[in-house]
Parts: sequence; structure tokens; C-alpha cells
Amino acid sequence: MLNLPKTIVWENGRVKLINQKLLPHKLEYIETDNWERVVKSIKDMEIRGAPAIGVAGAFAVALFANKYDGENLEKFMQDLEKVSRIVATARPTAVNLSWAVERVKNVAKTATSVEEARRLILDEALKIQREDEEANRKIGELGEPLIEDGDTVITVCNAGSLATSYWGTATAPLYVAKEKGKSFRVIALETRPYLQGARLTAWELSMAGIDVVVATDNSIGILAMKEKINLAITGADRITSIGYVANKLGTYPLALMSRVHNIPFYVAAPSSSFDLKARGPEDIEIEIRSSDEVVYIGNMRITPENVKAIYYAFDITPPQLVTGILTEKGIIYPPYEKNIKRIIGKN
Amino acid sequence: MLNLPKTIVWENGRVKLINQKLLPHKLEYIETDNWERVVKSIKDMEIRGAPAIGVAGAFAVALFANKYDGENLEKFMQDLEKVSRIVATARPTAVNLSWAVERVKNVAKTATSVEEARRLILDEALKIQREDEEANRKIGELGEPLIEDGDTVITVCNAGSLATSYWGTATAPLYVAKEKGKSFRVIALETRPYLQGARLTAWELSMAGIDVVVATDNSIGILAMKEKINLAITGADRITSIGYVANKLGTYPLALMSRVHNIPFYVAAPSSSFDLKARGPEDIEIEIRSSDEVVYIGNMRITPENVKAIYYAFDITPPQLVTGILTEKGIIYPPYEKNIKRIIGKN
Repeated sequence: MLNLPKTIVWENGRVKLINQKLLPHKLEYIETDNWERVVKSIKDMEIRGAPAIGVAGAFAVALFANKYDGENLEKFMQDLEKVSRIVATARPTAVNLSWAVERVKNVAKTATSVEEARRLILDEALKIQREDEEANRKIGELGEPLIEDGDTVITVCNAGSLATSYWGTATAPLYVAKEKGKSFRVIALETRPYLQGARLTAWELSMAGIDVVVATDNSIGILAMKEKINLAITGADRITSIGYVANKLGTYPLALMSRVHNIPFYVAAPSSSFDLKARGPEDIEIEIRSSDEVVYIGNMRITPENVKAIYYAFDITPPQLVTGILTEKGIIYPPYEKNIKRIIGKN
Repeated sequence: MLNLPKTIVWENGRVKLINQKLLPHKLEYIETDNWERVVKSIKDMEIRGAPAIGVAGAFAVALFANKYDGENLEKFMQDLEKVSRIVATARPTAVNLSWAVERVKNVAKTATSVEEARRLILDEALKIQREDEEANRKIGELGEPLIEDGDTVITVCNAGSLATSYWGTATAPLYVAKEKGKSFRVIALETRPYLQGARLTAWELSMAGIDVVVATDNSIGILAMKEKINLAITGADRITSIGYVANKLGTYPLALMSRVHNIPFYVAAPSSSFDLKARGPEDIEIEIRSSDEVVYIGNMRITPENVKAIYYAFDITPPQLVTGILTEKGIIYPPYEKNIKRIIGKN
């Protein structure tokens, strides 16, 4: 058993989640039976990572149903509709959130009593969590053979257990390899501006007893030259039908550097991250975020007052740089257009 | 005339230098006639950048000579020897520092009086400063035609005026282009861990009225895709006889990304930065610095207590990624082995 705490759990009618804002310095849980407190956690990024937010949203709705006072089903369904809307919009961009809320709301429609609705909603929320965890475990098992004893693995951002129900995506093969007793080292790129690599990935890997070091994002060139890196693995926010990968800033440079230095570059993502309506990079909208998120580190401004930053939050890695894509349905190899269609679904 | 303050000047027997530790928030000068105060500035990195440190060291020796009380030449030469040693070792790695101190010390050897030694030392110190400024100006004039109206130029770290007597190396073509009335935009990569790009390059370019924005180091991929970048230009800490370029972390990834996106990638450096005894990357020792310089930003620790960082301070760019090298002796193009020998000197 790895010493890797669960990101979010349902326990005796309460939700218990790690307050990620306090990491890496303090492991503290938020425990509540109040659905609005969970919404606040999503809003304030005490919980983050698209799959983890989806589960939190589903649990928020389940908390609402659990504490619902009254037996009028029609009234319950009206209130459920209102609450679902509030939960689903707690964060604007995470698709998983509205998708998960929709799922728990829809199962309630077949209920013939409030009591039954309550049970159906909770069962569905727990199922969403279980499915996420199982998909990640599967990704981990498929990816584990890529890691050998003595290897050095590099990753960006936090496509980790903290971003999901458990295991993470990019980190899942690492945890399975660790369980199997393999000994290896991970380089976590710090991932400016939010430093998810330095703060979160470093924390969860070291909790699980995996040897991890951090490096600045601009180190990839010298690391590829001087450290023997055997594998690069990252998550994905979105993968198109022909294999373009939108992911956190720094993924594309890492993929390119990996290619030049013959380091296999894998992307790990559940099948739900594929957007088969998108094809080329022009079909992916890249969010441009506020300059302030770059020019302030804590309360310290790092640029002159009159100088701003350009901050694209994601980049796009071309398919020809991707060695393989780990999904719960199997590892997808090139040619991606054909194999994504075959393994994930139709275009 | 650009509004670009001089990094360091000699004025009426005093040295006046910008306190770079207060940038980008405050432009404040240190003015002193005390050579030990200048040594402290070098030690504390109130002045930094190899050429700028060289000039500061030469001026420190000149201050010592200027205030020297006594007319015994032999005694003076003994004291000069001692002072020179202290100044030359104020920073361990900057070659320019010991080289500049050596130069001013050596000219004093021909003096027949303390008065003459005083004058020779100051003349030599001013000459070192003038030569540096002239070399950079020449680099600027040679590089200026690379920049066209409406261009976007990207750079890393601070190979700027602040790192030299004036003009900088990578920035010199930008200042000359600005003087000629060209209008263009510069993207300064922030350059973790010290953020020289965000703090210093952004400051000096904006002072001079050049349009500058900052971006995180991991942005290079999406910037190359989304922003129309016309030119990449960086400085160099050391260039080998066949064109390997050791420079600040992030230079190699930028060069590689530039190649893939057909962005010309130039290196700007005076001929003194060539190390003709070195040939391949194995001949360049890359300094590994303390983990703490990465894991602390200000007083904030960004990793868990038990997780360290690997911090190579420089990377190495292979010659095949370098479009050209701007030196005061001319622009060097491939084949580098032949042309470096021809333009810079013999191997």
C-alpha cells in the first residue's frame, strides 16, 4: 500500500477533501455535510484538476439531496435543478464538472420518491468517482511496463492523484511501478506560473515514497543532455481526432526536446479527454489568462509596473512528437488518425 | 537619445553604479569613492553581468589608487597587489573580473611615480569600459538590420545594457533599431530562477521606450505557434571553437523551438566570450548551483521540505541550431569551425 491519501472521499454523509491550497506545506482536510462549502472549495481551488472537480461537484449535489428536508418529489426536483446549476458553474472551464452534475441530476429523474432520488444520486456520484479511479488504475497498469528499475522519468504540471479521484493519469504508471517494487527517480518540472509541479506533483510522489526532484521549466535542454532520462510522461487537457495534445504550458517544448534526445514521450489521459470533433491545432481554443497571474509571485511583482506578461495557459503538442497515448482502453500508437478512431470511437 | 541609464560610470573621482538589486521597482545609484564599497557591490550582486563586473573591478582598483596616501612607489605597488587580489576574487566565476583587474594592475608596472601609476590605472579602467561599450555598439550596428518594422523579437535572461558598460550584447541591436526609429516588440522570457528577464531585461527595454512583454519560460512552444516571432536573440557565456554556445538556462530549448518554427536564432557576444580551447559540449563545465536558489522564491518555499531541485545554471546550444553569431568583429555564419577560426582567431 502506498502512502498516498485520497483526494476526496464520501464518509458517513460527509465529504472529506484535501485542501490543496495548503500543499505542499500542510496536509489538511476540509470535512463538511454542507453542499455550499464544497462549491466554495471548487471556486477557491481548494480542490482542482478536472476529474477531481467533477467528483466534487457530484458529491456536492449528493450532500444537498442527503440533507434535503421534505418528501415532496416535485419540489425536490425543482430545488435539485437550481442547486445543480450553481454547482455546475462553480468553475467555468472544467467540462467534467457540468458533465458529472448532469449525470447525478439525470439519474434522479427516474425516482418515485425523494428517498429514492437521494439514493440514486449518491450511487451515481460514487460511481463517477469509482469509474475515474478505475480508468486511472488501468492507465497505470498499461503504462507501468514503460518504467524500468533505475530509470529517470520526467513530467510537467500535476496530472497526478490530486487532480483526480486517485492515481492520477501521468502519475498512475509511476504508482503502479512503485507498488511493484521498482526503484526509479522522477524529475517534476516546476510549471510556472502556478508551480503545480513543484508544489503538488513533488508532494504526492514524495508522500508515496517515490524519489522526486524539481527543476525549473527552462532546464529541459540541459537535463536532456546531462541526466539520463528514460521516459517523459504528461497528462492532457484535450486530444484531437488526429492526436494533437492540448496540455499545460511546457508540454510541447518537453515533447520536442524528448524527440531530439530519443526520450520516449507518452501522454496519459482517459478516453473522456478526447475531443473527436477537433482535428488540428486551429480547432483548439487556447485560453489567454491574466498577466497578473504571471507578474505576481505571491505578493511580489516581478516585472516593472508598466510591463505586462502574455500568458497562454496551455500549449499544443503535434502528434508526430507523441510516442504513444495511454488510455484506459489501451495504448494508442501512430498512425493516430486511424488508431484513435479505432480505440476511442468514431469521428 | 534613448533613455537608458549607464550601468556604471566614473565621475569626479567617484564610482556611480545602478543598484540592480532594487530593480525593477526602484532606480537608485550607489555612489562612492571607497574601493571596498565597490567590492561589496560586486559580492552582493548590486552589479552583475560579466562585462559590467569587469569594469567595476577595474574602477575599484582605480578608486584605491586615487585615494592612496603616500608617494613611495614600491609600497604602493605592494598595496596594489593586495587590493587587486581582493577585488579579483570578489566573485569566483566571472573571468572578466580577474582579467580586468590584471589589466589595470599591469599598466601600473611601467610607472615611475605613484602619481603616474594613478593616472595609468584610471586611463586603463576607462579604456576597458570604452572598449566594452564600443564592442557592444558594433554588435548592435551589425545586428540592427535583422530587425524590421513591426517585428516581434524574443530573448532570454539579461544580456542587456545592465550586464555590460552599455548597450548590452543581445539587446544592442534592439537599441540601435530603436534609435533608427524602428517599431517592434520584444518578448522577454522571465528566466527562472533569478528572473533576470522579467526583472532586468523588461526594465531596461521599457526604460528605453521599447515595447516589451514578459512570458514564462515554458511558453516558448505556444508563443512560437501563436505569436508571429521574427527573431530570437540571446547572449552567450562561452562559445567553443566549433560553435557550441553555453548560456543561461532556456537558451537551448528556445534555439530548438526556433528551428522548428523557422525563426532565425542569433547569439550576440564579444570576441572575448570565445573559448577556442573548448570544442564540444564535453569541454564546457556546467555549474551546478544550490537547490535553495530554485526552491525558495523570496522567502516562500515552493516544494515540500524533503524535495530538492536540480539546478544547472547554464545550458549548451549545439551549433546547428545557431543561425549566426554577432561579434564586434563581424557576424559569423556556419560552417562555424572554419569561420570562428577566420574571424576570432586561431585554434
